[in-house]
Amino acid sequence: MKSGLVLLTGNGLSPMNYTDNTYRFRQDSNFLYYMGINQPGMMALIDCDEGESILLGKEPTIDDFIWTGPLDSLSTLGERIGVEKVVAIHQIHPMLSKALEAGREIHYLPPYRADNVIKIHRWLGISLDDAKEGYSIPLIRAVVAQREIKSEEEIVAMEKALEVTAEMHLTAMRTAKPGMTEAEVTGKVHGVAVGHGGGLAYPIILTVDGHNLHNHRHHNVLREGQMLLGDFGAETDEVYSGDITRTFPVAKKFTTQQKEIYDIVLQAQLDAIEASVPGTTFKSIHILAATIMAKGLKELGIMKGDLSMAVEEGAHALFFPHGLGHSIGIDVHDMEDLGEAYVGYDKDTIRSKQFGLRSLRFGKALKPGHVMTVEPGLYFIPELIDLWKSEGKFTDYINYDALEAYRGFGGVRIEDDILITKSGNRLVGPTIPKEIEELEAIRGEAY
Amino acid sequence: MKSGLVLLTGNGLSPMNYTDNTYRFRQDSNFLYYMGINQPGMMALIDCDEGESILLGKEPTIDDFIWTGPLDSLSTLGERIGVEKVVAIHQIHPMLSKALEAGREIHYLPPYRADNVIKIHRWLGISLDDAKEGYSIPLIRAVVAQREIKSEEEIVAMEKALEVTAEMHLTAMRTAKPGMTEAEVTGKVHGVAVGHGGGLAYPIILTVDGHNLHNHRHHNVLREGQMLLGDFGAETDEVYSGDITRTFPVAKKFTTQQKEIYDIVLQAQLDAIEASVPGTTFKSIHILAATIMAKGLKELGIMKGDLSMAVEEGAHALFFPHGLGHSIGIDVHDMEDLGEAYVGYDKDTIRSKQFGLRSLRFGKALKPGHVMTVEPGLYFIPELIDLWKSEGKFTDYINYDALEAYRGFGGVRIEDDILITKSGNRLVGPTIPKEIEELEAIRGEAY
Repeated sequence: MKSGLVLLTGNGLSPMNYTDNTYRFRQDSNFLYYMGINQPGMMALIDCDEGESILLGKEPTIDDFIWTGPLDSLSTLGERIGVEKVVAIHQIHPMLSKALEAGREIHYLPPYRADNVIKIHRWLGISLDDAKEGYSIPLIRAVVAQREIKSEEEIVAMEKALEVTAEMHLTAMRTAKPGMTEAEVTGKVHGVAVGHGGGLAYPIILTVDGHNLHNHRHHNVLREGQMLLGDFGAETDEVYSGDITRTFPVAKKFTTQQKEIYDIVLQAQLDAIEASVPGTTFKSIHILAATIMAKGLKELGIMKGDLSMAVEEGAHALFFPHGLGHSIGIDVHDMEDLGEAYVGYDKDTIRSKQFGLRSLRFGKALKPGHVMTVEPGLYFIPELIDLWKSEGKFTDYINYDALEAYRGFGGVRIEDDILITKSGNRLVGPTIPKEIEELEAIRGEAY
Repeated sequence: MKSGLVLLTGNGLSPMNYTDNTYRFRQDSNFLYYMGINQPGMMALIDCDEGESILLGKEPTIDDFIWTGPLDSLSTLGERIGVEKVVAIHQIHPMLSKALEAGREIHYLPPYRADNVIKIHRWLGISLDDAKEGYSIPLIRAVVAQREIKSEEEIVAMEKALEVTAEMHLTAMRTAKPGMTEAEVTGKVHGVAVGHGGGLAYPIILTVDGHNLHNHRHHNVLREGQMLLGDFGAETDEVYSGDITRTFPVAKKFTTQQKEIYDIVLQAQLDAIEASVPGTTFKSIHILAATIMAKGLKELGIMKGDLSMAVEEGAHALFFPHGLGHSIGIDVHDMEDLGEAYVGYDKDTIRSKQFGLRSLRFGKALKPGHVMTVEPGLYFIPELIDLWKSEGKFTDYINYDALEAYRGFGGVRIEDDILITKSGNRLVGPTIPKEIEELEAIRGEAY
């Protein structure tokens, strides 16, 4: 940013059912990245002309000591992070007004919380709609260029998040048994994340209805014969995320049908990881995974015909309606607040409008320093199957009769987080069992 | 409400770090009480002139089936709760505009979430400040009159919340050991609440720094010789709350000093519960508890002089700076969104401005059907002690020299939830150990 003022909006506390009963504090990720302070009610200004950074906040009072415990003074915080100046938060409005009067430009990132939209509206004297839409695209591009390449320190922080995430998944594998509710297993898993001093990177998906992709309900009772899909990860107190999915049978062993579908997804995931090297577009790896899965489904008699045509036309998306993966870092969908168009696509890669492929959050070429999730899946969604069948959709590629045997199957997804290196890629965090034999061995411990 | 339209604002999903990564959904409590639907993005209108209730929301789409799983149609929801009409949510703005044009009054409750403030601002065509402050006091009074008296069904729901809450506390008592972090114990406790399909009624307080009253940090390592204060409760999936505090030593046994302070708090709590009968003001019971604790502190040589004068002047608040308790129900501080002035005080009971007593959320006379927390506590807050000492405050009543022996003690609080009955009161939920002998027995299980 060559000139103007950059306003970084820190987050406030978010009310649940009244002002003072708040959710776990989540600092804004850009504020964390540039300012490193994980406390509510702070703002920052970076003066691009003067080369000066200013931290704005409130000094702790005796009431804070009584109710919250000791807090650092603003100047201590400022010294810790090395800003040039600290200023009381109530000065921000006059400071911004003065800058606007002097004709200076104020750059800010897209606000995603209503309280910050209102603040920008008030401080910059613009309408709510303009506050929401008036963010700086050059600033977005500058932030994406920095944040998308993870530093060594960031990788260390992510490894920690994935250590906890691995423990969460092993806990699920060692706990789930027929007769338990999904909620009971979810409680154990959630407890592991909290136990390490952090929380969840996103709401836990842990369900025998794995075909409902972002199902956050946990009311089902686990039954022998079902597959349990667990998609969850820790957010550490340093605020980096893990995002792992594992799918395993509620029973000790996979059925033949479960093995057949699982093997297809696993093969697609392993091949997609292998293909994830610098210079390759993630979109082409998505297509690769889709093609491998279509091939597997053809072998089972579920798909048919010319598979490269089927994938090009999007017939496979009946079973794989989401994207292969996304960038991950401080956020589980890293920088999603800045807009997927800027994070996952560029002038060379246009986002598709096709069902399935349009859900791919990241299509552009991989670079060393990118951290990506790789998470192919196969699902049998009764409502979608019935709809497509009734519309006579893709009858050249889909054998709808064969699908009757998969009603109630649910879904399988397998997900790991990888770092793109100069020569290829490597797993971030510990290896978490995903081979059928490994899973069956560990599932024995639950019984 | 004799005329006009009542607008009940349901809550939306609350973003963490970007729009689509949201906190656990918490419906607005008033919406829950009157509409009973625990889903985001809904509104309700009650036409007081026509005697008609209208539910507004969105019909599920095929995308919902793919991403969320099956959802009820608006008409199914409407039939379930017995409203006269269901209407698509985008109709609410024109409906309200039409009502305003016809000169009708729109009554709404205080909005505490910024997104709902913006909605009211847009729909009613008033400024953000007016939207925030333009709530209806007659509507508040009408809602408080209904919600403060708990029905039998509500008591059943609260008993369930307290069953889970009891299990959370027993888990803490059976888990905590020297060398563990507060976070590890917190994880186990949090996991119990999630495991029952609900969540937390409020952020968990679980700390050896119990003198920081609303301390939500869990970074300390537990050490023999410390007291561990746990203040937490479940919010069930029916959305009723429990709120219990227990304090016990990290060691298996209380030290003599710990016993002495604990016994004072326990005596105050037992006597305060006994005094909680219809017709008695909760303010007088607060004073009773304060007096009992001041007496105990005098016996230990910490306080001195004329105790009734000391309590009247507020000297005891150095050790007991918060209120004795509050109303509880759907919210842990029930109806705090409506304003404590309307919930906890009335024309006969004015809120005090004195340090300590001013933090009492509920001062008015008790009635059958009230559910109250009773939670006296004693704390040794170094910063506050040093401040008062340096100011020479209450030297007639406080023996500052004796306090040196209590530096690092932390705090003790004991809290139960009681229902005021016609003849007196009874505990809501199961009995949770609080006698020293009981606690020492159960603490043995952790070791």
